[in-house]
Amino acid sequence: MNTRGILIVVSGFSGAGKGTLMKALLSKYEERYALSVSATTRKPRLGEVDGREYFFISTAEFEKKIAKDELIEYAKYVDHYYGTPRDYVERQLDAGKDVILEIEIQGALKVKEKFPDALLLFVTPPSAAELKKRLIGRGTETMDVIGARLQRAAEEAEGMNRYDYLVVNDDLDVCVEQMHAIICGEHRRCYRCETFISEIKNELEDLKG
Amino acid sequence: MNTRGILIVVSGFSGAGKGTLMKALLSKYEERYALSVSATTRKPRLGEVDGREYFFISTAEFEKKIAKDELIEYAKYVDHYYGTPRDYVERQLDAGKDVILEIEIQGALKVKEKFPDALLLFVTPPSAAELKKRLIGRGTETMDVIGARLQRAAEEAEGMNRYDYLVVNDDLDVCVEQMHAIICGEHRRCYRCETFISEIKNELEDLKG
Repeated sequence: MNTRGILIVVSGFSGAGKGTLMKALLSKYEERYALSVSATTRKPRLGEVDGREYFFISTAEFEKKIAKDELIEYAKYVDHYYGTPRDYVERQLDAGKDVILEIEIQGALKVKEKFPDALLLFVTPPSAAELKKRLIGRGTETMDVIGARLQRAAEEAEGMNRYDYLVVNDDLDVCVEQMHAIICGEHRRCYRCETFISEIKNELEDLKG
Repeated sequence: MNTRGILIVVSGFSGAGKGTLMKALLSKYEERYALSVSATTRKPRLGEVDGREYFFISTAEFEKKIAKDELIEYAKYVDHYYGTPRDYVERQLDAGKDVILEIEIQGALKVKEKFPDALLLFVTPPSAAELKKRLIGRGTETMDVIGARLQRAAEEAEGMNRYDYLVVNDDLDVCVEQMHAIICGEHRRCYRCETFISEIKNELEDLKG
């Protein structure tokens, strides 16, 4: 009915299970969604594949993209750039796919400024206690690192109200369906269905005779 | 998670199948929804039951309700008042049920003014041709009446853009699920989840310690 896809920005606490959730959503509804791949100037880590985890490009190439406004958003962390190439996103949206960007809050808010129709989703575990449990459960982090993550989560939580939807990741399957339902619902928003509405208006004008 | 229900206003073209849709939704998700019953000063028709189709009250009683602001919205058609008693709606919302009002567009817009958090859904068949087909298919109307209905539909279509969501009633079961998904999605809106958000913020402040 409405053919253009929706740009969906997903953020959330480290430990909220965003990665697993995205993977499950994309494998269940492969034909509906496309995952945006970021560009970065940092070197690939072991096992990372160009075009899958990131597009690995040089600083000169990255800065050329900035100059030509070819990035939807970008940021510099430490010595490296990270950004979202506009080209791929636009192509997927035009093809009717909903495009998912997984980025942190500053980037998310920048995207919303440029694309007011973008949907901002915030993924959270059901409680802070559960978040802590998951961070400890990974078994890969020292208590110092876990403390730093919780500190960062407390900062990120300040931005939660600026998102459109809250996605509570308790049970993974339920969460996938919840996220999919939110997105399907958004496609039914009147302001996203203007073509349909103007068509039915014209048709009614003709029929009433 | 968020305990208070959402007020849902449903409008749509005559012949869009609102009645059947509401019945199917309420029977499938009985525990989730409550249907608001309007008050009217007109006399009950054969088979109509007080408190089921309408609350049948006197003009004096109705005007007392207006004076005491006990109606969410009301209107006068020909010689009779029709309105939505506030009391029942508030009690159901407090009990966590989503309350559905089936009213026409003028009333819907009045409700949205008083309850900015209300959801306005517009039910439409997939096309104007399909609407005409359904009106003819009923077999109970003369072509003059059908013409008048299409005329009215053309007028109502002018207000479609002011609704929040468009619900396309093509296949009934699909439509019930679509409407339910829209409403479930709305419960995940950040501005409806403020209690959860402030709780997790407080919890994180405590935990980061």
